[in-house]
Amino acid sequence: MNNNSAATWIWYPGDYEIWLANEMNNRRTERGAFFPHFWKMDSHYVLVEFSKKINLAAPEEIEIAVEGKFNIKLDGKLQFGMPTKFMLPAGKHSLNIKVWNQATPPAIFVNGKTVKTDNSWKVTYEDKEWIDESGKASDTSATIYMDAEGWADFDAVDKLPSQYKLAIEEHKAVTVTNVQGGQLIDFGKETFGFLRFHALSGKGKINIFYGESKEEALDTNDCETLDVLTVDGNNVTDEALAITSILEGIYTLANSKAFRYVYVTKDDEVSFSEISMLYEFKPEEQRGSFTCDDEELNRIWEVGAYTMELTTRECFIDGIKRDRWIWSGDAYQSYLMNYYLCFDSQTVKNTTWALRGKDPVTSHTNTILDYTFFWFLGIYDYYLYTGDEHFISQVYPRMQTLMDYVLGRTNKNGMVEGLTGDWVFVDWADGFMDKHGELSFEQVLFTKSLETMALCAKLADNTPDQTKYEKLAVDLRAKLLPAFWNETQKALVHNRLNDKPQEQITRYANMFAVFFNYLSAEQKQEIKESVLLNDSVMKISTPYMRFYELEALCALGEQKEVMKEMKDYWGGMIREGATSFWEKYNPTDKGTQHLAMYGRPYGKSLCHAWGASPIYLLGKYYLGIQPTKAGYSEFAINPTLGGLKWMEGAVPTPNGEIKLYMNENTIKVTATEGRGYLTFSSESQPQASKGTIEKLEGNNYRLLIDGKEEVVVSYK
Amino acid sequence: MNNNSAATWIWYPGDYEIWLANEMNNRRTERGAFFPHFWKMDSHYVLVEFSKKINLAAPEEIEIAVEGKFNIKLDGKLQFGMPTKFMLPAGKHSLNIKVWNQATPPAIFVNGKTVKTDNSWKVTYEDKEWIDESGKASDTSATIYMDAEGWADFDAVDKLPSQYKLAIEEHKAVTVTNVQGGQLIDFGKETFGFLRFHALSGKGKINIFYGESKEEALDTNDCETLDVLTVDGNNVTDEALAITSILEGIYTLANSKAFRYVYVTKDDEVSFSEISMLYEFKPEEQRGSFTCDDEELNRIWEVGAYTMELTTRECFIDGIKRDRWIWSGDAYQSYLMNYYLCFDSQTVKNTTWALRGKDPVTSHTNTILDYTFFWFLGIYDYYLYTGDEHFISQVYPRMQTLMDYVLGRTNKNGMVEGLTGDWVFVDWADGFMDKHGELSFEQVLFTKSLETMALCAKLADNTPDQTKYEKLAVDLRAKLLPAFWNETQKALVHNRLNDKPQEQITRYANMFAVFFNYLSAEQKQEIKESVLLNDSVMKISTPYMRFYELEALCALGEQKEVMKEMKDYWGGMIREGATSFWEKYNPTDKGTQHLAMYGRPYGKSLCHAWGASPIYLLGKYYLGIQPTKAGYSEFAINPTLGGLKWMEGAVPTPNGEIKLYMNENTIKVTATEGRGYLTFSSESQPQASKGTIEKLEGNNYRLLIDGKEEVVVSYK
Repeated sequence: MNNNSAATWIWYPGDYEIWLANEMNNRRTERGAFFPHFWKMDSHYVLVEFSKKINLAAPEEIEIAVEGKFNIKLDGKLQFGMPTKFMLPAGKHSLNIKVWNQATPPAIFVNGKTVKTDNSWKVTYEDKEWIDESGKASDTSATIYMDAEGWADFDAVDKLPSQYKLAIEEHKAVTVTNVQGGQLIDFGKETFGFLRFHALSGKGKINIFYGESKEEALDTNDCETLDVLTVDGNNVTDEALAITSILEGIYTLANSKAFRYVYVTKDDEVSFSEISMLYEFKPEEQRGSFTCDDEELNRIWEVGAYTMELTTRECFIDGIKRDRWIWSGDAYQSYLMNYYLCFDSQTVKNTTWALRGKDPVTSHTNTILDYTFFWFLGIYDYYLYTGDEHFISQVYPRMQTLMDYVLGRTNKNGMVEGLTGDWVFVDWADGFMDKHGELSFEQVLFTKSLETMALCAKLADNTPDQTKYEKLAVDLRAKLLPAFWNETQKALVHNRLNDKPQEQITRYANMFAVFFNYLSAEQKQEIKESVLLNDSVMKISTPYMRFYELEALCALGEQKEVMKEMKDYWGGMIREGATSFWEKYNPTDKGTQHLAMYGRPYGKSLCHAWGASPIYLLGKYYLGIQPTKAGYSEFAINPTLGGLKWMEGAVPTPNGEIKLYMNENTIKVTATEGRGYLTFSSESQPQASKGTIEKLEGNNYRLLIDGKEEVVVSYK
Repeated sequence: MNNNSAATWIWYPGDYEIWLANEMNNRRTERGAFFPHFWKMDSHYVLVEFSKKINLAAPEEIEIAVEGKFNIKLDGKLQFGMPTKFMLPAGKHSLNIKVWNQATPPAIFVNGKTVKTDNSWKVTYEDKEWIDESGKASDTSATIYMDAEGWADFDAVDKLPSQYKLAIEEHKAVTVTNVQGGQLIDFGKETFGFLRFHALSGKGKINIFYGESKEEALDTNDCETLDVLTVDGNNVTDEALAITSILEGIYTLANSKAFRYVYVTKDDEVSFSEISMLYEFKPEEQRGSFTCDDEELNRIWEVGAYTMELTTRECFIDGIKRDRWIWSGDAYQSYLMNYYLCFDSQTVKNTTWALRGKDPVTSHTNTILDYTFFWFLGIYDYYLYTGDEHFISQVYPRMQTLMDYVLGRTNKNGMVEGLTGDWVFVDWADGFMDKHGELSFEQVLFTKSLETMALCAKLADNTPDQTKYEKLAVDLRAKLLPAFWNETQKALVHNRLNDKPQEQITRYANMFAVFFNYLSAEQKQEIKESVLLNDSVMKISTPYMRFYELEALCALGEQKEVMKEMKDYWGGMIREGATSFWEKYNPTDKGTQHLAMYGRPYGKSLCHAWGASPIYLLGKYYLGIQPTKAGYSEFAINPTLGGLKWMEGAVPTPNGEIKLYMNENTIKVTATEGRGYLTFSSESQPQASKGTIEKLEGNNYRLLIDGKEEVVVSYK
């Protein structure tokens, strides 16, 4: 009966994503206190009109479900009440459904034989359909209609968007130890979810202290998260004063927490038989993979993938203990890792909408100057990896208003500086970093953001914008080297104050200028020596900026050096007991020093998305796979063993994958979509099972991969 | 124990008002269909931080109630949970409460011995309180803090803002008549509220047809509002599919309706004993009054006051049958009438916030170009009548952004024209009115709006804005006469197309230019003859523009002529049976022609606020009382009998009143606050019981009124 693709619930683009992100961002707590973020929290349009032009061969009954109070108009005529079924007559008609909902995003689900809600429906927050005295309707030609947004998840009448939940799965404790009158429970590795008490009864308090480390769980005064429950017979009251009935002896906490350990104490009059947890996760297929002969590297990849699993939720969050918020700089890296792991485009889009919020723009993204730019960069990459032009056209109006905000805050040189209320972040640095004046790092990101605007203006068919942003991008890019290049130091200096370049060199702008290709080949090599491999330049101690540092080195062909660094740094965390990667890691720290940050003994997050960068580096710079045209319609495969004996892996593409195996004399490639060149070097003439190998400069060769069969290359 | 003024619930300024207006605006229905408005519906900030610097002589326990999920910070430190009591230590402290609420506006109520929520608390939607790696807090000097808003109504912990309801009072039917198997119930006069069924039982449908007229109620096919109930034992289902239990035999409808008559039919299996109604109203004291020797005029004043009572709700609405929405042009007149009736400043502020909504501005107010300007004018008058500078400073940022929107849409002459998507309304005219090009009416309103901006910029201590808007206002005002004055016709022409003044004269711009004093005394007199008293200029058939037409005539001293017009026009409606004043009235219409509008037989609203203008005209131009400095600190009293033998009345002032009695030889004045001149004419030397009468030009005299005692003047 149902010939077309399934109906989905639909809503105003971005609105549900923003609302859902609010639900998620507001789950952070600190020692029992609710801890929302400090930037503006936007929300959905509370009144939305959905419309569709239909043309029916036969009358058709539609099922209608709505989240909100609504009306239906057929050909401009209001229909009685709020029906759950409605008969559409044959022929051409206009169907409009207008919904009001303050609490959750207005959303509709319409399902008939042919008429179904999907993103061919139009939506507006302001239809401007007035009527004049004679009853004549207004001109709505200036009304802004967008395409509706809907997710495949919500494909049934009873799958209400407002009721969305991540998946859960019960996990048991690995060990339970009695410590000072309480129980210390170890779940074996970093995890995230809802603690659950079995056979709970009695009357009195239960104190729960969570720890990503054993030390934290046992430190009842300083652990970052805790819960206090008051049990009274069949009811349990939590710190939000919510009262929940115990069902069949089981009480599950309302808020999920991050932990490996929990330490639980209780009043004598309360009892329970066991504590388990409901692991909360987004069910996703890990379509990317990487294995090699180095077991430590394999473990690094696995721990990175698990770190991504834990931090991939309704959106990509920074860390699971704190902040549990969406941060643009962190999310940008999650996007990149995701393209080499799950290729979950939906979560990239959700996160992009949520970070952007609504107009007006009242601060930088997350209040951070650099994070505004990472938001633009994320869209650039999203398009490159997915080829999803439709999303670009949907989000383009918000790109415009955010860039207007940036352009409204530039100085006389057309550059950005931190103004009052702006957070100039760059990185958590273990030394002095000047945040004043024109930072080269910010200008490099700004340039790339302007280039992104020009690209997306073109995709959104906005030629005047394209011209404007191309000019702005070219102008700013032309200023970078004159402003910041220090010919003596062979590097971009950190900043300029009152038009005067300063002397300090930091790694940040230099790294980005390398892989953004803003420098000559000669300058890039100079930077490698003068900055990247120069120990006198302040070292980076966050996996966040290590990500880019190693990417820059890979882009310069230093895979062997980077392999060593990965094994030292990420291997180092694993040797310290990490089961997920950390927010920050200083190899010279000892013991509980590893746990402290922000002046708090357990302030550091031990599961932080930006820690997982080997996922990206191994996929893009060892397997060597990346798109060169949008959505992998064309790709490049440039594998490098980087000291390994062999490696094998897969990189997901929008509707397929590229698999690669390489050892010291064989490369095997299978690409199920797209086409592109496999490039490699060989000391002797290589052989291919299919196609013609072309010789390039030096010992380099390339082979066009175009077809779904495996291609085997022998080389030396 | 409680020495200070009472604590009130507080919220972000404007947010509750916007939310409450949404609740109100969304109560419109048309024949059982939900009918929300067609412009953007804004909503509250969902995350708001409230803060207060406190200095306590002794520790103090505070009671805390919050609408939303919240946290408490004392001196920057988060406190556990969501407590309902909290002990504040002695000394200087910072108290912060941060609240998240998607569905209703974040609001808090704090009550201690000295610490109480009131508008000395600060609020922000974006505190920007980040901490750096070391735990140091950010600079929040760029954070925008506003004063909290709270109403005196919400002065107890259990008076939750989200639960606000108007008052109700049960009214019985006046007559019940059996008509064609149904009951026609007459409540005796136009009314508004919830229909109520007594001893309701059985199973089946009840159909309810509402009518402002008997004809409408009995016309089941075309009446504008109706309800269909499905009774099934103890449950009743309405058209919104909501199911309500019958309590002690009584079922009250969920949505209020406007009617005088209801016609009710039912299935045989359903029964009820009686239908009554709960009259829904805003309890207010009518502080203004007017009586005179002319009983018809007294009745006009009473019907006007009742029309205002019916249309004064959470905000001032246009009409009670439809649209039940806030329209800026309609509200502007309600404000003016209100200053002479209830002096309800709260409802003026609510309506002003609600009309403005939030940023960004995406269309004119209610989509109507002229209504944007009436919004500014309403603020001008609000300040003049109330002297409330605090409100001006709170709303000023939204005045700026709305005026930015207007200025972004001006043409090369700095004038406004209707652009695509703009509704150029002016009036419902019974003849051709060109809406193209530069309308003189719009430019006159624009000029006054710019003058309002300049005034309010000054009150908000924004000197650069003041300078900017003063210049814009002066420039535009200087263009009005050169652009529109037609020296042959002695009038402002209606519009200019491509810089060419057109020939048509309409009344609109001419009226406003008169009482805005944009013309010379000579031009004003010319307009009186050439336009206002000229029957060949298209007549006005709405009470809306009659309001300004008669005001212009009063401003020109034509009170006798206006008295005649009032008795003809408003007296005419009463003679047609009106119990409240209508949206439109054409004295030449007959019978049911009076009920039709918008191409629908009962489309016309028979209770429309803009119909009540005699309230304003009698107070301002007969009693002759108006403020000349903000908040009646100075006033003018210029009474005119206009053909009456005597009149007596009171005009409310912010904290008092001005009472006046006048007959043909005596004037009695009592002013309980402010000072100002009583001005009058007398053929012989007048005498005063107090003070010294000064002679002016001609037969005119004035007497300073300064003191609370009654002053009696004898004159001839």
